[in-house]
Amino acid sequence: MSSKSTKKPAGKKPVVGIIMGSKSDWEAMKNAEATLKSLGIPCEARVMSAHRTPERAHAYLSNAKKNGLKVIIAAAGMAAHLAGVAAATTRLPVLGVPMDGSSLKGLDALLSTVQMPPGIPVGTLAIGPAGAKNAALLAAAILALSDDALDKRLEAFRKKQSAEVPEFPY
Amino acid sequence: MSSKSTKKPAGKKPVVGIIMGSKSDWEAMKNAEATLKSLGIPCEARVMSAHRTPERAHAYLSNAKKNGLKVIIAAAGMAAHLAGVAAATTRLPVLGVPMDGSSLKGLDALLSTVQMPPGIPVGTLAIGPAGAKNAALLAAAILALSDDALDKRLEAFRKKQSAEVPEFPY
Amino acid sequence: MSSKSTKKPAGKKPVVGIIMGSKSDWEAMKNAEATLKSLGIPCEARVMSAHRTPERAHAYLSNAKKNGLKVIIAAAGMAAHLAGVAAATTRLPVLGVPMDGSSLKGLDALLSTVQMPPGIPVGTLAIGPAGAKNAALLAAAILALSDDALDKRLEAFRKKQSAEVPEFPY
Amino acid sequence: MSSKSTKKPAGKKPVVGIIMGSKSDWEAMKNAEATLKSLGIPCEARVMSAHRTPERAHAYLSNAKKNGLKVIIAAAGMAAHLAGVAAATTRLPVLGVPMDGSSLKGLDALLSTVQMPPGIPVGTLAIGPAGAKNAALLAAAILALSDDALDKRLEAFRKKQSAEVPEFPY
Amino acid sequence: MSSKSTKKPAGKKPVVGIIMGSKSDWEAMKNAEATLKSLGIPCEARVMSAHRTPERAHAYLSNAKKNGLKVIIAAAGMAAHLAGVAAATTRLPVLGVPMDGSSLKGLDALLSTVQMPPGIPVGTLAIGPAGAKNAALLAAAILALSDDALDKRLEAFRKKQSAEVPEFPY
Amino acid sequence: MSSKSTKKPAGKKPVVGIIMGSKSDWEAMKNAEATLKSLGIPCEARVMSAHRTPERAHAYLSNAKKNGLKVIIAAAGMAAHLAGVAAATTRLPVLGVPMDGSSLKGLDALLSTVQMPPGIPVGTLAIGPAGAKNAALLAAAILALSDDALDKRLEAFRKKQSAEVPEFPY
Amino acid sequence: MSSKSTKKPAGKKPVVGIIMGSKSDWEAMKNAEATLKSLGIPCEARVMSAHRTPERAHAYLSNAKKNGLKVIIAAAGMAAHLAGVAAATTRLPVLGVPMDGSSLKGLDALLSTVQMPPGIPVGTLAIGPAGAKNAALLAAAILALSDDALDKRLEAFRKKQSAEVPEFPY
Amino acid sequence: MSSKSTKKPAGKKPVVGIIMGSKSDWEAMKNAEATLKSLGIPCEARVMSAHRTPERAHAYLSNAKKNGLKVIIAAAGMAAHLAGVAAATTRLPVLGVPMDGSSLKGLDALLSTVQMPPGIPVGTLAIGPAGAKNAALLAAAILALSDDALDKRLEAFRKKQSAEVPEFPY
Repeated sequence: MSSKSTKKPAGKKPVVGIIMGSKSDWEAMKNAEATLKSLGIPCEARVMSAHRTPERAHAYLSNAKKNGLKVIIAAAGMAAHLAGVAAATTRLPVLGVPMDGSSLKGLDALLSTVQMPPGIPVGTLAIGPAGAKNAALLAAAILALSDDALDKRLEAFRKKQSAEVPEFPY
Repeated sequence: MSSKSTKKPAGKKPVVGIIMGSKSDWEAMKNAEATLKSLGIPCEARVMSAHRTPERAHAYLSNAKKNGLKVIIAAAGMAAHLAGVAAATTRLPVLGVPMDGSSLKGLDALLSTVQMPPGIPVGTLAIGPAGAKNAALLAAAILALSDDALDKRLEAFRKKQSAEVPEFPY
Repeated sequence: MSSKSTKKPAGKKPVVGIIMGSKSDWEAMKNAEATLKSLGIPCEARVMSAHRTPERAHAYLSNAKKNGLKVIIAAAGMAAHLAGVAAATTRLPVLGVPMDGSSLKGLDALLSTVQMPPGIPVGTLAIGPAGAKNAALLAAAILALSDDALDKRLEAFRKKQSAEVPEFPY
Repeated sequence: MSSKSTKKPAGKKPVVGIIMGSKSDWEAMKNAEATLKSLGIPCEARVMSAHRTPERAHAYLSNAKKNGLKVIIAAAGMAAHLAGVAAATTRLPVLGVPMDGSSLKGLDALLSTVQMPPGIPVGTLAIGPAGAKNAALLAAAILALSDDALDKRLEAFRKKQSAEVPEFPY
Repeated sequence: MSSKSTKKPAGKKPVVGIIMGSKSDWEAMKNAEATLKSLGIPCEARVMSAHRTPERAHAYLSNAKKNGLKVIIAAAGMAAHLAGVAAATTRLPVLGVPMDGSSLKGLDALLSTVQMPPGIPVGTLAIGPAGAKNAALLAAAILALSDDALDKRLEAFRKKQSAEVPEFPY
Repeated sequence: MSSKSTKKPAGKKPVVGIIMGSKSDWEAMKNAEATLKSLGIPCEARVMSAHRTPERAHAYLSNAKKNGLKVIIAAAGMAAHLAGVAAATTRLPVLGVPMDGSSLKGLDALLSTVQMPPGIPVGTLAIGPAGAKNAALLAAAILALSDDALDKRLEAFRKKQSAEVPEFPY
Repeated sequence: MSSKSTKKPAGKKPVVGIIMGSKSDWEAMKNAEATLKSLGIPCEARVMSAHRTPERAHAYLSNAKKNGLKVIIAAAGMAAHLAGVAAATTRLPVLGVPMDGSSLKGLDALLSTVQMPPGIPVGTLAIGPAGAKNAALLAAAILALSDDALDKRLEAFRKKQSAEVPEFPY
Repeated sequence: MSSKSTKKPAGKKPVVGIIMGSKSDWEAMKNAEATLKSLGIPCEARVMSAHRTPERAHAYLSNAKKNGLKVIIAAAGMAAHLAGVAAATTRLPVLGVPMDGSSLKGLDALLSTVQMPPGIPVGTLAIGPAGAKNAALLAAAILALSDDALDKRLEAFRKKQSAEVPEFPY
């Protein structure tokens, strides 16, 4: 996927906020950005740490709705709290992507993200780049509920995706 | 939570379909139904197995969108494939709830649900009743994006939830 | 093992179908093909995804028996559903091979394949290339039940295999 | 399922041998026997330990083929070696069922059964009673490859199984 | 241990704050309170959820130092974020106690608490009541660094503890 | 097994020391004592904690050899260090038995006992009562290397054990 | 971080002792030293093995308090007992850092360090270099309780740390 | 360690048999041979597979005692059954070394080796080369019980080992 990113897709207000706990998460999370862009969904990406910059996270997330965001994609590794913090701060749907950044290979981040106690939900995707891409696709499915044009593009994406699976392995 | 359920909330078309792989999953999943009802979201619950009744599942899911459903909540245990089948069959957002129904205590269902390969997303919640409740709340957050009245009810729910946390443990 | 494969062993109808969720699984699964060929068992290999091409999978599997296949070997990684889909669609014996294609090192694929709920069985082999080879050998053992010539070849294979274990490690 | 068992189904030679490492495994494995009987497949059940009675196991397994057995179902717990011993001793297809009989909840038995090194395959089913039932169904699928009447009964079993899944959870 | 607790030990300002994500954590955490009391360390216990009451948590923790607290003991289950939130909000030493409140038996809470990324530390104790008691003892060791009388009491506690281990098991 | 124990088998000097970190481990470890007694091996049982009574452990273990002990069996739970302490203190063979006394079901004790770094060995048995019995049997095998009468008794024990495995499960 | 270390920071008595079970742990643990130095906390680093040099460990730890140390940071891998030995030998606060030095990727060291039984606490940090840095920061927080100048430096460190998190990932 | 091995240490009858399931295990197991040699313990190394050459294993193990062997060290990977087969076939003490030869990093081999059911013990060491060395040291400790000269050498080895631990990490 392309890594050519400008800081904001020109001329459109972002509706998806991709947030991550560390700049190093971008290597995986750029798959989310690329997928959203390929579906014509304006998005923005920000680094904010639940632990090192809790105030930045709070400011961003408590204003997310009024700033026009509709879905938050939150990625973090190890004791991954960012998605939980997001879900605690905004009523917007929050999708979590566990990062594979420790010796435990992302199992720590997966459990820290998915095992949210009752009351504050995080919809969790797979560990790493696969989860980054799927978070974008789930955001698209959510947004398509009230955007017929996007729904058509999503339908086309899935048809193309099916068609591109080769029939033979060799 | 109340277990008094009618087969369909009277007078309103369901917008959330709660599907589960076995009748025994209902003990946990009735938390999803109760939460949706408390937020005034019409829903329906169905049993269908990815393995024992794949045709029933296919029929339900391929017609889900045209039947007015907007979000699918899919629960299954062990090698939990139902959410994946749902996500492969409909473009609607699919939320997965792993059931704790084996000697491995739901770890098998969690990994079978959350580790979806790139291309077909399942937003996964926690194992068991906590996940059932949170799937309903995430569905509500998704639906509230285009339903201001629901958004208000969700806001009220969360305020009430905060207020009900006792200050002292004893 | 040889990676020289033609798309169909010449002149014989395949009796084993090797299916896999992604072309990248071939690196491991060519061990299954090579083992089957070395035992003179005609086979074919196909890519089909339980998630990205469910219709292709359904078409292949629901016709497998009438097309003369006797055993299905299904390989997939992450939330590996392909073997389960196969077992839900055909009454033929289905053997599952979990792929090691995620940060969890195939534990996700193993549990997604082996922990099938009661009613629809998948006979599961080890993660990765070892499982690919063993799936072929188990398919051979199954087919040898009604093929004495194959049973002799299998017996010879096992004797040769025993003889080739060196006595000293240095 | 019925626990009324005679030591050998009257008047028919067993074609499936259910072996287990300890008498206490019978609680789970009687599901295999009941399923085989319900499909009209003659079977026998024996206790033999890979560790405590290796000679009994060797005698039974090295004669299994000549005694008319076609499939071996082997169940054991903890460091579950019985299925591996069976697969090392006979060329017949061996299906393994890990028992949940230790504090590790069957994870030890699962890995000891499924992670067979290349060369000697064990087709492994789920931990516990679910695996016991599925081993019987996989044995039936194997035997049905050369027994049309059994194939019809298996087809009927699966149709009945599908029909018995209730549509509503309440 | 005694469960007779008043809301604040009379006449002394608390120096340890025991916080927990849910009232149900008290069953384990009362061991921390009892141990602190037995060592003459004034403490207070509060319920506050990182997810359901983030503002209450923020208010308590950002004022903890100025209110005279010296050590925070934070207990939570599942995706246990409370200790991380505490460590992100105050510079006081934070000790985390993972609760065993999910089907994963506290492994989720352990990893969510201990695997903090670099920059914000949580000193983590064992899962459950053992961890609760040990958090109190570690808090005591910390406070004893500048409190000789407490150091003497801690020394006596440890001598008594050693002496109470019986020599024979029967 | 009998729980009637005197503090020292009358008239014979113990050659096996069964040590355990907590009196509560006796429920499992009495299987070790009973097995040793049934083989006529004099033994003694002591409680000593690597953590709460390190000096008692050091005194016992550094004198073990000169007091006539030949094998140490050490049992502990959680972060089970007693066997490692024993192996660091005496040159006698040390056998470790992990106890199942935490929410992690003995996985913590197993890894804390078996994963000894190079230089100081602990021969580790299974978690819980099975390991307790097997530690006694391994101690017997070790002692039988220089005690022909014991070797005969061990041989008889194993023959009896084989003979007592029932042939049929029902 | 700088690896230029002298054996003792000149002119100041160490207050933190960094001990490790093997010289190879230094690669991770130098992060602890560097962090302590950057905060102006005098420290010393020593190699001592709970298993290979228990007497050296005992000598160092039983004199730690009288030698002016206030906090012990103990790192070890595999069956990591060093932190537990430290906590059993001194009343000083002991912080444990599990090393990632085995095929189990530090899970063994984590459980061996954190799952201390009740009575002897070890405050455990994350596996590997992240834990090394955080152990230093937790030691700083502990020392800052009675050192206002250090508290100011710690506050400044955390502000700088927050400021250095970039806002954008690209 | 030296890899220069002759097939049998000249002039002395082996008392330790190092057996392994695959030639590839030698890379780790040569540490056992080197350690035994350095302690003057005659040993031999053989490859034999519990699965591919069960008869060779049976022949070797059932004659081990009469051939003068006193301790068996058995190494295997994946579903590691060789140590269990050894312990079932001979009354000699059997020490197991799990190999790290699969995607599960030796966890499968560890559980397959250590979780032996009651009645047939395997004293298990750590996964991989550390376990290989420690198996040799435990064999030495066992043999030293009746060999004072070896006991002296073992004592010297341990003193040297202690002395070689460096005091400073840099």
